[in-house]
Amino acid sequence: MTQFTRRDVFATAAGAAATAAAGFNPLTLASANAQGVAGSTTGVYRYKLGDIELIQVLDGARTFPMPDKFVANVDKEQAAAAFEGLYMPKGQVTISFSPLIVKSGGKTIAIDTGNGLGAFAATKGAVGNTRANMQAAGIDVKAVDIVLISHFHGDHINGLKNADGTPAYTSAEIKVPEAEQKFWTDESNQSKANGANKGNFANVKKVFDGLKTTPFEVGKEVAPGITAIATPGHTPGHVSFIISSGSKKLVVQGDVTNQPGVFMRNPNWHLVFDNDGAMAEATRRKFYDMAMAEKMPVVGYHFPFPAAGYVEKDGNGYRLIQVHALT
Amino acid sequence: MTQFTRRDVFATAAGAAATAAAGFNPLTLASANAQGVAGSTTGVYRYKLGDIELIQVLDGARTFPMPDKFVANVDKEQAAAAFEGLYMPKGQVTISFSPLIVKSGGKTIAIDTGNGLGAFAATKGAVGNTRANMQAAGIDVKAVDIVLISHFHGDHINGLKNADGTPAYTSAEIKVPEAEQKFWTDESNQSKANGANKGNFANVKKVFDGLKTTPFEVGKEVAPGITAIATPGHTPGHVSFIISSGSKKLVVQGDVTNQPGVFMRNPNWHLVFDNDGAMAEATRRKFYDMAMAEKMPVVGYHFPFPAAGYVEKDGNGYRLIQVHALT
Repeated sequence: MTQFTRRDVFATAAGAAATAAAGFNPLTLASANAQGVAGSTTGVYRYKLGDIELIQVLDGARTFPMPDKFVANVDKEQAAAAFEGLYMPKGQVTISFSPLIVKSGGKTIAIDTGNGLGAFAATKGAVGNTRANMQAAGIDVKAVDIVLISHFHGDHINGLKNADGTPAYTSAEIKVPEAEQKFWTDESNQSKANGANKGNFANVKKVFDGLKTTPFEVGKEVAPGITAIATPGHTPGHVSFIISSGSKKLVVQGDVTNQPGVFMRNPNWHLVFDNDGAMAEATRRKFYDMAMAEKMPVVGYHFPFPAAGYVEKDGNGYRLIQVHALT
Repeated sequence: MTQFTRRDVFATAAGAAATAAAGFNPLTLASANAQGVAGSTTGVYRYKLGDIELIQVLDGARTFPMPDKFVANVDKEQAAAAFEGLYMPKGQVTISFSPLIVKSGGKTIAIDTGNGLGAFAATKGAVGNTRANMQAAGIDVKAVDIVLISHFHGDHINGLKNADGTPAYTSAEIKVPEAEQKFWTDESNQSKANGANKGNFANVKKVFDGLKTTPFEVGKEVAPGITAIATPGHTPGHVSFIISSGSKKLVVQGDVTNQPGVFMRNPNWHLVFDNDGAMAEATRRKFYDMAMAEKMPVVGYHFPFPAAGYVEKDGNGYRLIQVHALT
């Protein structure tokens, strides 16, 4: 299942960094070890949207050699230059991961769950810190009432389990997009999975094994003040979440785009993890046009921490203006 | 002493927001109350520069109606439009405050100290959270070995004291720029203080009363791996700090500029808190040209959290590219 990933996506990994990177596929890797960095706060940011409290936690950041075909429809040199333009080390890519905790209507809600406790902890730029950061912010994983999942890639769902495979969010209703669940739990869809997505079925099976989930439809309220909207392309059933308090709104995009400095600026670039590049691009443009029209801040799972900004037009693409403070 | 501040700088404050804002002057206000928000993590971000560990803590953010003459040499309407362009509420300004903790050479070093415990806690967008955030990051204020002060404005020095006026950093050597100390401890310099700075002498006296300080000269190492450089203008003895680990460097600018989206973009705009606008502007240009030439990340006390980025040319000014992850 990881054949595509290792051979094609990470074919260029070399040397010591390569050893670490070879095992890195955010789509498939389940929690690999339990050493973690528990107790070490790496990133917490608390702010408000009207009456709703938002606690942005950092799962971590990963720096790895840029694989071939990382941007499926762009030359490797051009893609590498775009990342280097963001002051990442030459030939390297940094991706960060930021689940959001929402306190709304008396409920504690987690939107996505990170890479899982301890995963990658031995590599440069460790991830798997979501739980430690929740703890630093005074949030016990066992006190979470609702988990909302944007889509079924490993970096968003692996945190549902502890390193030993037991459920992490023991008191929570785990709500998942219905279309996403249907796609990834039917292995006859293998032929419809592209690029790095081919290996995802097995990980989905492993993560959700033994977990009770509640599928939800888009267009409906899925938690107090939170409505799911369809943003397909990155994966077939990918959703985003609009959070509202009074007249104030914010949208949690999931993976409508990855690194904004590269992929918002070039919305026509198709990341290897986008299952349907053309559909992901169409969704991206429609989504950001909506966010701009409504002057709605966007929270992005792979945006630089604390992962929130406003969207503006920038040539043929978009740019992100970091939120200074929402109150 | 607060006459200029209240009458001129905050003359336009009106209504309920005004009541809160009227008391706000980051240059003069000492810790006003002790309610604080202890135990509530509002912002922590941990990263590395070579062997050195950096822990960015958020003191908080303040949103207040934009005072007249907030930008001394620019029309109020034009200045207000610039802040509105950053998606701040119409007519309002948000300023955030981010002291940095450095672990280097076996020492724990604090660079600047925030607005003081509990100050402004009753107003919208509370500040005074530095200590709570340090605690969340596992850093006891009493275990800090060295405090480095960039300049003597209240939002940088008030945290040296507890709300009851006792010293906060009881084990630390408190190191201050020699030229800065000379200027603010000689009241005959009142005539050389401009704009909102006129009220600063009394606060300096109050904050440093009973504290032992070590004055330092620029151009020398002031803590393991940390060298002070002269960046005058904002205040007469204002300094920045270059942090080095092996071949890696980062510069902590202090207040070379305030909000980057406004004042890096318009380096010729003179903030009311700049004591010598022309000198501050000259320093700013020289400083950012140096940071660009050396591709050195810049940490800014008033940058959006987590307050670190790379500087690029943008027309006649500069722009900040947020750091994604330093490892």
